[in-house]
Amino acid sequence: MTRQVRQALRAQRIETPSWAYGNSGTRFKVFAQQGVPRSPWEKLEDSAQVHRFTGVAPSVALHIPWDRVDDYAALAGHAQALGVRVGAINSNVFQDDDFMLGSVTHPSATVRAKAVAHLLECVDIMDATGSDTLKLWFSDGLNYPGQDDLRARQDRLAEALRTVYDRLGERQRFLLEYKLFEPAFYATDVPDWGTAYAHCVELGAKAQVVVDTGHHAPGTNIEFIVAFLLRQGKLGGFDFNSRFYADDDLMVGAADPFQLFRIMSEVASGGGLDGGVAFMLDQCHNIEPKIPGQIRSVMNVQEATAKALLIDRDALRKAQVEGDVLGANAVVMDAYNTDVRPLLAELRQEMGLDPDPMAAYARSGYAEKIRAERVGGAQAGWGA
Amino acid sequence: MTRQVRQALRAQRIETPSWAYGNSGTRFKVFAQQGVPRSPWEKLEDSAQVHRFTGVAPSVALHIPWDRVDDYAALAGHAQALGVRVGAINSNVFQDDDFMLGSVTHPSATVRAKAVAHLLECVDIMDATGSDTLKLWFSDGLNYPGQDDLRARQDRLAEALRTVYDRLGERQRFLLEYKLFEPAFYATDVPDWGTAYAHCVELGAKAQVVVDTGHHAPGTNIEFIVAFLLRQGKLGGFDFNSRFYADDDLMVGAADPFQLFRIMSEVASGGGLDGGVAFMLDQCHNIEPKIPGQIRSVMNVQEATAKALLIDRDALRKAQVEGDVLGANAVVMDAYNTDVRPLLAELRQEMGLDPDPMAAYARSGYAEKIRAERVGGAQAGWGA
Amino acid sequence: MTRQVRQALRAQRIETPSWAYGNSGTRFKVFAQQGVPRSPWEKLEDSAQVHRFTGVAPSVALHIPWDRVDDYAALAGHAQALGVRVGAINSNVFQDDDFMLGSVTHPSATVRAKAVAHLLECVDIMDATGSDTLKLWFSDGLNYPGQDDLRARQDRLAEALRTVYDRLGERQRFLLEYKLFEPAFYATDVPDWGTAYAHCVELGAKAQVVVDTGHHAPGTNIEFIVAFLLRQGKLGGFDFNSRFYADDDLMVGAADPFQLFRIMSEVASGGGLDGGVAFMLDQCHNIEPKIPGQIRSVMNVQEATAKALLIDRDALRKAQVEGDVLGANAVVMDAYNTDVRPLLAELRQEMGLDPDPMAAYARSGYAEKIRAERVGGAQAGWGA
Amino acid sequence: MTRQVRQALRAQRIETPSWAYGNSGTRFKVFAQQGVPRSPWEKLEDSAQVHRFTGVAPSVALHIPWDRVDDYAALAGHAQALGVRVGAINSNVFQDDDFMLGSVTHPSATVRAKAVAHLLECVDIMDATGSDTLKLWFSDGLNYPGQDDLRARQDRLAEALRTVYDRLGERQRFLLEYKLFEPAFYATDVPDWGTAYAHCVELGAKAQVVVDTGHHAPGTNIEFIVAFLLRQGKLGGFDFNSRFYADDDLMVGAADPFQLFRIMSEVASGGGLDGGVAFMLDQCHNIEPKIPGQIRSVMNVQEATAKALLIDRDALRKAQVEGDVLGANAVVMDAYNTDVRPLLAELRQEMGLDPDPMAAYARSGYAEKIRAERVGGAQAGWGA
Repeated sequence: MTRQVRQALRAQRIETPSWAYGNSGTRFKVFAQQGVPRSPWEKLEDSAQVHRFTGVAPSVALHIPWDRVDDYAALAGHAQALGVRVGAINSNVFQDDDFMLGSVTHPSATVRAKAVAHLLECVDIMDATGSDTLKLWFSDGLNYPGQDDLRARQDRLAEALRTVYDRLGERQRFLLEYKLFEPAFYATDVPDWGTAYAHCVELGAKAQVVVDTGHHAPGTNIEFIVAFLLRQGKLGGFDFNSRFYADDDLMVGAADPFQLFRIMSEVASGGGLDGGVAFMLDQCHNIEPKIPGQIRSVMNVQEATAKALLIDRDALRKAQVEGDVLGANAVVMDAYNTDVRPLLAELRQEMGLDPDPMAAYARSGYAEKIRAERVGGAQAGWGA
Repeated sequence: MTRQVRQALRAQRIETPSWAYGNSGTRFKVFAQQGVPRSPWEKLEDSAQVHRFTGVAPSVALHIPWDRVDDYAALAGHAQALGVRVGAINSNVFQDDDFMLGSVTHPSATVRAKAVAHLLECVDIMDATGSDTLKLWFSDGLNYPGQDDLRARQDRLAEALRTVYDRLGERQRFLLEYKLFEPAFYATDVPDWGTAYAHCVELGAKAQVVVDTGHHAPGTNIEFIVAFLLRQGKLGGFDFNSRFYADDDLMVGAADPFQLFRIMSEVASGGGLDGGVAFMLDQCHNIEPKIPGQIRSVMNVQEATAKALLIDRDALRKAQVEGDVLGANAVVMDAYNTDVRPLLAELRQEMGLDPDPMAAYARSGYAEKIRAERVGGAQAGWGA
Repeated sequence: MTRQVRQALRAQRIETPSWAYGNSGTRFKVFAQQGVPRSPWEKLEDSAQVHRFTGVAPSVALHIPWDRVDDYAALAGHAQALGVRVGAINSNVFQDDDFMLGSVTHPSATVRAKAVAHLLECVDIMDATGSDTLKLWFSDGLNYPGQDDLRARQDRLAEALRTVYDRLGERQRFLLEYKLFEPAFYATDVPDWGTAYAHCVELGAKAQVVVDTGHHAPGTNIEFIVAFLLRQGKLGGFDFNSRFYADDDLMVGAADPFQLFRIMSEVASGGGLDGGVAFMLDQCHNIEPKIPGQIRSVMNVQEATAKALLIDRDALRKAQVEGDVLGANAVVMDAYNTDVRPLLAELRQEMGLDPDPMAAYARSGYAEKIRAERVGGAQAGWGA
Repeated sequence: MTRQVRQALRAQRIETPSWAYGNSGTRFKVFAQQGVPRSPWEKLEDSAQVHRFTGVAPSVALHIPWDRVDDYAALAGHAQALGVRVGAINSNVFQDDDFMLGSVTHPSATVRAKAVAHLLECVDIMDATGSDTLKLWFSDGLNYPGQDDLRARQDRLAEALRTVYDRLGERQRFLLEYKLFEPAFYATDVPDWGTAYAHCVELGAKAQVVVDTGHHAPGTNIEFIVAFLLRQGKLGGFDFNSRFYADDDLMVGAADPFQLFRIMSEVASGGGLDGGVAFMLDQCHNIEPKIPGQIRSVMNVQEATAKALLIDRDALRKAQVEGDVLGANAVVMDAYNTDVRPLLAELRQEMGLDPDPMAAYARSGYAEKIRAERVGGAQAGWGA
């Protein structure tokens, strides 16, 4: 078994987001950090460091317009030269002043057209960069009951999705994201997996659901959703992060490592490690150093995956069939309680990497280098 | 407009559940009350009182096996003689000792067959009583991670649903209920509307989703779900009750009357009052007198419906199109803040009823009568 | 009774916050509005409009440093000339770069001293403006387990509070605010009323708890906390707003008007309308026009108060003593279901005001005036 | 360090509850198990098995009236003969028919007197059995707003607590439990730690708070409460169990092992392992075999304690002082990620126990023995 585990761990790919390298914060304050990138080009350089020390993060998601450049082919080439590549293209229809009351679900056809145009521009960027995945998150929603018509907004949403869907190339897909709340505080137009799923089913095979681990109501069993979507062929990927309360965007696995393990267990047993499911980080580092925060997050996903792979599936099935509640749970907990760090350290050495990516990055001098070099210019952040 | 409002209110039908007339409680204690029915026949008599004083509750849901009798045609005749009729048939696959670890999703084919047999028996009872609706609630789920395979249980669920679906007569349908948790405490096999919806879509037109207002995670926007299911043609009905915390089963509208109004507003604007959507109470009265609790609940649904119907839809649409957030919200709040009790009192008088159902029931002497007569025998409760 | 109700409603005072008149938003975007104040002086002018049309909002809370001016006596004089006065002084120890990892609970004594110095400056401003209330909200907390020592932070907090407490003048007090989470995402140093209460008890009579209605865990019974704090003499006031999910800062009463009524019912029956309890709005209007949002909020508090005052307390007590669950609840619901808008309209006319403050403000031309005049300059917002 | 860790682990005592050995369930169904005790005497025998295989569970909590016997001294002697002793006495004022609307907070003085008499009887039983701890849980509360007066109920609660407090002997104490909801569904009279704490402070040193890990609102940071109560000298003990949703009463550590670890970390660093804090299990095994469920739970507490003790406190403090967010968190996670099962296995062998308590119990034949012997008689459960 160990060989299969190692092979699966070697094959896993975890994508980091360009926006994790810039400044971010809460509505109360964005604390700026030293050495933060001033351009998409510099964000790619930072993402390459995460891949350099982990060996499993070879792609980086872009966010448009935050990562807008004149020449996307050149940006893709820059990535390649750094040993990474452009991953998912993330659209943004929530920061233009026209989108205050909605984008693709806005009552005004003019505003909707503007939003759709942006989404189509993102597909153009996919073409230019070779990206095969478009990520759609809509902050559209209402703050007050009555503010707009819930049902009419679904009709508008469906229409916009169809337009974008029809524009997708043969090897392209989009992932539809759902989120319970924020920034809308009464109703969100794609609030849960059921809504995203229903739209994707009506659209076709190139539309899939992306699960952001921080976007659920308290008490939601996320691994159930994962298992269900995998069964239906509609799990497109993950936006990984973690939370104690709302969409806290902490490092994945930091708040509830057992939950991450349970999720990865369903992924592993449901065929989600065989390709097709994108493992993406989507988290903000308000007080953590940016690059180490990404490295640690990548490692957390790896550790959860390793534990999930160590579950003795035969013993588990046997206990399940026998109705041995404590026995079946014990099989799962045995894997969870295993310290997989030595296994991953060995694996890294086999891959020619330092067994301890955090320490290796700290020793590398890269942090000092960017603090010294990246002086002047406007630091990247969430600004449109 | 007022005439339409009155007409809609006269046409609305609210079904009460037979089990609301028996004793119920929490896991800590069932407090027995005097005058509680000792048989399905007596439950029907109590339900007829609710209809007598409200005029809008002419049907009563049965629960099998709690309401098992030798002669269902006779039971239906008894109902008719009392001025009511048999409504939805509610299945129960959660109290047999064999169902400790599941019913239709149990790992054992033998147990699953037993569960399906019960569901088919319920369709037989529909045939015998003239009921057109089967309500399916599965308590199936897991208390511990690993206890059983989440995905395999979905396969088993789908198979059982298909068998029952295929047995339905031409004018029959089933409603699939979802519930976040309880009695299962880790994972429930139909935990949310998305799961119920996905199964119903795969099954066909006779399968619809029922929304129990107490079965959601904290913060869930229930009226969104209602609007969405109506849009998809998949809202079969409601199990009404209310809650502050979990599935508290308080009188509908008691915990959050504004939420009930918002739900009824989506029902009204989405065509849900035109037939096809069943308005059923599903609540337990642990400390309240049983019949008055049902009367009050029926009135609460009526008041919320009346307010929903009073929304000035033209003014609302205008404000929505203009992006007038406060104006649109004010239109909705104007209706909500209206005291509709006088309107409903008038309506009852038009219908030949006492304008105050609670007072009229209290004066009727029925409570004293059943306390005196129903001595001896086993009080109805949740026992299998 | 009606006379007492009217008298109580006339006597009630609701304070608006200076920051409600400036721009605000979520972490995703601040949508700027036209006509927004460029200075504390202009904020006071806007607050005077709310008082002009409601007659019950004669004070405005300041926020330091957002409302920092050279001459606070002049600012207080400006208020007086506008017919209002300076209310609570709100401290801000969450936006200085030094406070990234905490203010009064920071591990560094230097940072703590800086934070305390700011709080003492706020007391100076109280002296200069005649304010009698200092509001203390600490965003201090941790994003990750282990980030700092929970207990040591309490020791540091206690020390800082003691220093500020000892600086208070004879007729001054401070209100300690609690909040479940945000901006800290793992642990907050004053997360709940129990923590605030325990510190206030140890400090003495000039320290009281302020209840922000948006700062609780899901399911928390806020009116219980209100009743309990009133019983202990420790309810200093309210920061009113409303929420469906987290600290959404919607208009008070917008998300759950029944909850606001229940809170005001405990206030009324617990002696909280007799003075000593400050009714303050603390909410942000991200998409609503600012001044109308405040007017509506003031009216919402008035309506909830009116309904609370209409509860038939004798009938309620009788039903409670008799164990008449439905009867007691009905007494409360009768008051809640009453449409109090006509009563408040009359009251306003008695006070020489327009019965409809929203319409009167809209007609007044003030909105058009500030949109025309307030061009250029930096709009007020949450920036430090 | 290892020696200290071992010593602390050897010294830790975990109490099991007598009611965990009997049948329990949800409001929907109690599934009876074979071999369940028919009397308090047999429950003690089962508890002795848990101690036999774990070596750290030498006491068992009693619940009155479920464990009512004629001769408590004899019961205590029976325990001693089995190698265990009587732990906390748990009162029950929630199952008598008179307590439907409350016990110590009931509007009727007669009912309150009956409730207090029961509590005093429990102190008598403490005297008779040598127990030094009384556990007070009140299910008192309301299902509907208005049902009773929140403030008056606090006055009645305070009076009852005072009476019981004054009856306590010199070496006796009581622990006051709080719970968010259930069985009351609108308001609970001791809903949170703040309420329990305030009463205990007013009563004196013999009154302390007990933290049931399943009794909080979603998102509550339990370890913060633990740290705070320890700082105030008011943490009396734990009722351990775990939950995904409400008060699910699953095996402690099963739902969120990381949370249990964080709690034990605060206990360890706050002096909670030095005596004075009672570690009690309070959980129900609805579908798990009873004795193995307790053994596993005891082991889970041990594992969390071991990990908490392995935290490198010097390194942690250093990182905290330096503001090294990721470094401090890493110190904590290093301990959490350590597999402590080998350490505990060794420790058990040093104590003369089998290194694997679950396997040893399974081999012991005790389960088969009680299934064979305990036939006939009434199985113990939650019935009064």
